[in-house]
Amino acid sequence: MTAHPASGRHLVVIGGVAAGLSAASRARKLDRDLRITVLERGPVISYGACGLPYWIEGQVQDREDLLVHSPGFFRNERNIQVELNTAVTEIAHARRRVLLSNGRELSYDRLVLAMGATARVPEIRGIDSPHCFQAHTWEHFGRVQEYLEKRQPASAMVIGAGFVGLEMAEALRMRGLQVTMVEAGPHPLRWHEEWLSRRIRERLGQFQIDLHTNYRAEEIHEQGLDAMPAGMVVVAAGIRPETELAQRAGIKLGRSGAIAVDEHLETNLPGVFAAGDCAETFHRVKNAPDWIPLGTTANKMGLVAGANAAGRRERFPGVAGTSIVKVCGMAVATTGLSPSGARQQGFGAVSARVTARSRPSYFFGEQLEVELVAERRSGRLLGAAVVGDRDVEGRINVMATAIGSGLTLDEFQYTDLCYAPPYATTWDPVLIAARQLRNAMEQG
Amino acid sequence: MTAHPASGRHLVVIGGVAAGLSAASRARKLDRDLRITVLERGPVISYGACGLPYWIEGQVQDREDLLVHSPGFFRNERNIQVELNTAVTEIAHARRRVLLSNGRELSYDRLVLAMGATARVPEIRGIDSPHCFQAHTWEHFGRVQEYLEKRQPASAMVIGAGFVGLEMAEALRMRGLQVTMVEAGPHPLRWHEEWLSRRIRERLGQFQIDLHTNYRAEEIHEQGLDAMPAGMVVVAAGIRPETELAQRAGIKLGRSGAIAVDEHLETNLPGVFAAGDCAETFHRVKNAPDWIPLGTTANKMGLVAGANAAGRRERFPGVAGTSIVKVCGMAVATTGLSPSGARQQGFGAVSARVTARSRPSYFFGEQLEVELVAERRSGRLLGAAVVGDRDVEGRINVMATAIGSGLTLDEFQYTDLCYAPPYATTWDPVLIAARQLRNAMEQG
Repeated sequence: MTAHPASGRHLVVIGGVAAGLSAASRARKLDRDLRITVLERGPVISYGACGLPYWIEGQVQDREDLLVHSPGFFRNERNIQVELNTAVTEIAHARRRVLLSNGRELSYDRLVLAMGATARVPEIRGIDSPHCFQAHTWEHFGRVQEYLEKRQPASAMVIGAGFVGLEMAEALRMRGLQVTMVEAGPHPLRWHEEWLSRRIRERLGQFQIDLHTNYRAEEIHEQGLDAMPAGMVVVAAGIRPETELAQRAGIKLGRSGAIAVDEHLETNLPGVFAAGDCAETFHRVKNAPDWIPLGTTANKMGLVAGANAAGRRERFPGVAGTSIVKVCGMAVATTGLSPSGARQQGFGAVSARVTARSRPSYFFGEQLEVELVAERRSGRLLGAAVVGDRDVEGRINVMATAIGSGLTLDEFQYTDLCYAPPYATTWDPVLIAARQLRNAMEQG
Repeated sequence: MTAHPASGRHLVVIGGVAAGLSAASRARKLDRDLRITVLERGPVISYGACGLPYWIEGQVQDREDLLVHSPGFFRNERNIQVELNTAVTEIAHARRRVLLSNGRELSYDRLVLAMGATARVPEIRGIDSPHCFQAHTWEHFGRVQEYLEKRQPASAMVIGAGFVGLEMAEALRMRGLQVTMVEAGPHPLRWHEEWLSRRIRERLGQFQIDLHTNYRAEEIHEQGLDAMPAGMVVVAAGIRPETELAQRAGIKLGRSGAIAVDEHLETNLPGVFAAGDCAETFHRVKNAPDWIPLGTTANKMGLVAGANAAGRRERFPGVAGTSIVKVCGMAVATTGLSPSGARQQGFGAVSARVTARSRPSYFFGEQLEVELVAERRSGRLLGAAVVGDRDVEGRINVMATAIGSGLTLDEFQYTDLCYAPPYATTWDPVLIAARQLRNAMEQG
């Protein structure tokens, strides 16, 4: 406490990665005089967590290259105090104080919760074996790297076929390991459509990576997983929101299990905001709270939470759940709801899927596969998936913008996208898909 | 007349490139029984006109590779009659007949005008010299190619720094010619902002192409243009809508000089529609008719004109004037209004410009320059420019979608764009620009 002047309002931020530092920085921008402290339980802050698999792959040379800013930068350039290796053990909101792992207490006026998520550890015998690794934090990836360098295993099992599982499978394969993946659910990723799962499986197959879905792993042992031999096991079986501290303080969770927030990202405790992977966000298509733990969402929520903690009253408009992941060189991107996801939400959904070139063949255009989903009754766009080796990110972003704007197919179909042979075709694949879906709707 | 059965309704389309064939094909899709005839005054139909400079550059091997469909395809697959080398000399609308250059007459029930545009020929002495070439039609480019092959000139002058002028300058440079450009106006392209003109000039300079703006060409002679030596001269000084035939038939032009149409793309003569470069379109940002001769616009207008000629009542929602052009490997893309263009339209416009990476440097991210324009009072997005060597088309398309949707900066700034290190940064350059512009607006 003595490190800070006793006077002035104090914003305390719990968590020093994407959401927490966005919140602290935004608050500073809006209020020069606010005291701001960021508490981070880990040894580093402000790192590009999504780049860690590419450090394993070798695309990133030094893990330190992923550090965006140092605590010194925040202290000197932004007048934000950062405390590393400092966990919060209790939020005593009645007294507006947080208790720290080092025995100290810190008073606050406003609090931003940005604790993130923790790796979900599935119940598999032997999961604490020395050759079995989580893949979520800075430290986790450090252990994977160390093991790879020291032991040079010839093969690996990856448990979980979500974003990180797929990225780690590719990274390990690029390093020459034989890789096998198992996934407890019926599909890799969350789109849950047969065609997309097939594309992923085909691409993995071209890289000699087998994917076993609906697979219940039972035992990790010295020789591998169950009957499959492997020199190491990487567990990427999803994450869960870090909420225990909040719950103990009487902060309510939403139906997803993450911290519930209102449109200003305030929790049920006045003056306590939450942002990033520990909190629910708002899904624009479902028109309901949802838990979508992604780096971009965390950064955006952080800005709004920080602004409101500094006295503003900004609204977070929500997200469409846009994501993209590289699967052995193939980009798989989705936004909004899949056909099955939309039906599950009660939408009368129609969909269409097309394959079309992103550019003329004489400019190295590649085939993209585009699936669009719309509500039958209103024609409102509900979701999109785009898959291909190139030019995928631009297309999914157009769909994310259209879906975020609440456009109908009729409104979207003539969107004035750019055209010149080096960059595009006269009819962009997403517009071809829109026309096809519109035709399908007209024909009943 | 004997070539067609006498019974049944007849749609005649004048012009067989982008707009005309889109109209004919859409009409066929909606009405199996309609008689459809496309009249094309040139020797070919259905070609990717925008690809012609890349045939000169050598990226396209054979000019025939740019032919999308043959007349036979339209006859056999779509039951659309195509007549090549057939100009219409008169539209006798009172009798619902068109008079043809070969002396025949054709009756019609509905007519779609898709005559396109013709090259604007500036008043320069010697412009009809044998080493001076237009660059607009299939035949024009054929003559350029022939001259290059036969005469192998060592240098060229390009008159005009619009899309085609810039593409031709690059194409000729790639073939080893020394190239100099002159432009009558103060800027290349139409964005008319100093920074963008500087970028273009710098890039051209890296390829040893000089650009002289505000240059009034006086005389083309055997040794070159004015005091500048050149073995050939290419004139790409813009185009004008082909309207003479329409005017003689009593069809009204708009203020731009192109054919005026209503939101159903119908002219003042009932049953006569117009689409593509000969017609005005609707500018969504200006909220007014405008002449925007681009291939994508032509295709889209064609679909709507064709549908309405077949008895529908579809509305063309308009365009934002989105374009992209390659300038010696650098993509220059714009949509909507530039800062100066917006002010000229009476908007109280504010703008911001940022430079940011499209991807992390470890995934070969390149710097993009993004300029956004918004209306001060409402925050409504009015325009955007994106410049860079890579990843430009996706960004301008996001802006075109947002601008087409009428989004404000506040609505746009948290758009849920995709992120993963191989494809994007957590804050996309367009979102960084949006935040910067929003800050600028807040600060007055």
